[in-house]
Amino acid sequence: MSFIDRLNNVIDKKNSLLCVGIDPVLEKLPEEFQSQKDPLFAFSKYIIDQTHEYVVSYKPNSAFYEALGSSGIEQLHNACRYIKETYPETLILLDAKRADIGTTNEAYAKYAFDYMGADAITLHPYLGQEAVQPFLDRTEKGSIILCRTSNPGAGEFQDLVIEGKSLYQRVAQGVSEKWNTNRNCMLVVGATYPEELREIRTIVDDMPILVPGIGAQGGDLQKTLEAGLTHDKKGLLISITRSIIYAGNPGQEAQKMMQDINNLR
Amino acid sequence: MSFIDRLNNVIDKKNSLLCVGIDPVLEKLPEEFQSQKDPLFAFSKYIIDQTHEYVVSYKPNSAFYEALGSSGIEQLHNACRYIKETYPETLILLDAKRADIGTTNEAYAKYAFDYMGADAITLHPYLGQEAVQPFLDRTEKGSIILCRTSNPGAGEFQDLVIEGKSLYQRVAQGVSEKWNTNRNCMLVVGATYPEELREIRTIVDDMPILVPGIGAQGGDLQKTLEAGLTHDKKGLLISITRSIIYAGNPGQEAQKMMQDINNLR
Repeated sequence: MSFIDRLNNVIDKKNSLLCVGIDPVLEKLPEEFQSQKDPLFAFSKYIIDQTHEYVVSYKPNSAFYEALGSSGIEQLHNACRYIKETYPETLILLDAKRADIGTTNEAYAKYAFDYMGADAITLHPYLGQEAVQPFLDRTEKGSIILCRTSNPGAGEFQDLVIEGKSLYQRVAQGVSEKWNTNRNCMLVVGATYPEELREIRTIVDDMPILVPGIGAQGGDLQKTLEAGLTHDKKGLLISITRSIIYAGNPGQEAQKMMQDINNLR
Repeated sequence: MSFIDRLNNVIDKKNSLLCVGIDPVLEKLPEEFQSQKDPLFAFSKYIIDQTHEYVVSYKPNSAFYEALGSSGIEQLHNACRYIKETYPETLILLDAKRADIGTTNEAYAKYAFDYMGADAITLHPYLGQEAVQPFLDRTEKGSIILCRTSNPGAGEFQDLVIEGKSLYQRVAQGVSEKWNTNRNCMLVVGATYPEELREIRTIVDDMPILVPGIGAQGGDLQKTLEAGLTHDKKGLLISITRSIIYAGNPGQEAQKMMQDINNLR
């Protein structure tokens, strides 16, 4: 089954469009986790156990585990294994923002898909389709391509205009028309840019879009859903990180976000 | 001292423009390394000991270590520590091709600079300067930005033309004019595109350029040097990987490459 079909099955079964980002910064964790032997794993497991009923996917960010070196990688590995063993329906989108030439991408695909057991990975578009083909060839795994990112300075290159179309629109068009032959591509579009999201939706038909930037980064949920939902009220994964994982009650916050999203669909 | 000044000091002292890429694929290593407890470290150490006299910098590619998970990361860590302890003049350029939003880049900078002890890291330009500022703020560390990559399909986005200038030229111009205020930026330009390298040299003045793609990928050494050297016969780091690390005698091959480069300077 293609990755997009798998994703839509989970969305339907859980009646949710919520993705929870897991970005554990050691110094910001509650004291009870900082003192544990494997603090990033302990915190990740806590978030997963609290929120699993409400989420389609987790999006652990590799960077925050890498910052602790091999121990951090081991803890991310254990967190991914915990998800697969305990909540096997829930997808793992490894937020690693990789991309290199083809032979190197084979090694990155091993890291993300074989070692971590992730279901999808985020990727930079800059080297083109030919380079990322080792990811695209993994039909059952998702390739989530950066299109219009959520950061304030995203436009420096992404907004440059080529014959009437901006670079991010070119990326959306290329991925939709050429890269997605295995139905396993998604795009990343920040919630901080709802107008750009609306344009991208018109370019990519019903391709699913991962949307970070709600909450701490300032994106608006209603505008995001109006701009990005498909006709069948899907096509978006709303990724929430800091406002859930650092909440006093992450489960309650995840449930509220799932319901807020569903009320606006 | 700025990263570019540090780099030029090592180039002068060693009278070399050679960078050796370390991309260990477990299945391709000689049998004597495959059977060791830490095969990637053992192989990396062997390459380093054989070649250190002739090289300005090593460029280990994080992907090939990540493919083995936490054990691979530990082996890369040990390889970087071995370089710093045994050959402290030699620079480490971590080829990791990262870039995310700012808060996440702080974690990637910890991984590359603090945990691995690398002197520089390769980065994607797609999110813009504002996102990669945590790397640029590390004055003594290098940020090596992908500009025109060596892969056959590099032009899909990099060659798109905006008001008469291609995207890779825009990246070169932006990095040269705006990102490089701390004199710690370099660009990546593949040896497979010497004409593009010549154009980029006219844009970036004497900014150092890391050039992969000689050897296995088909780049031509003479054309590369003619296109990319600065007036003072520097400005390039020629990165060679497979033809050195898989040679019968890597030290001899590295010495030959160093001399070939110097003969053409």
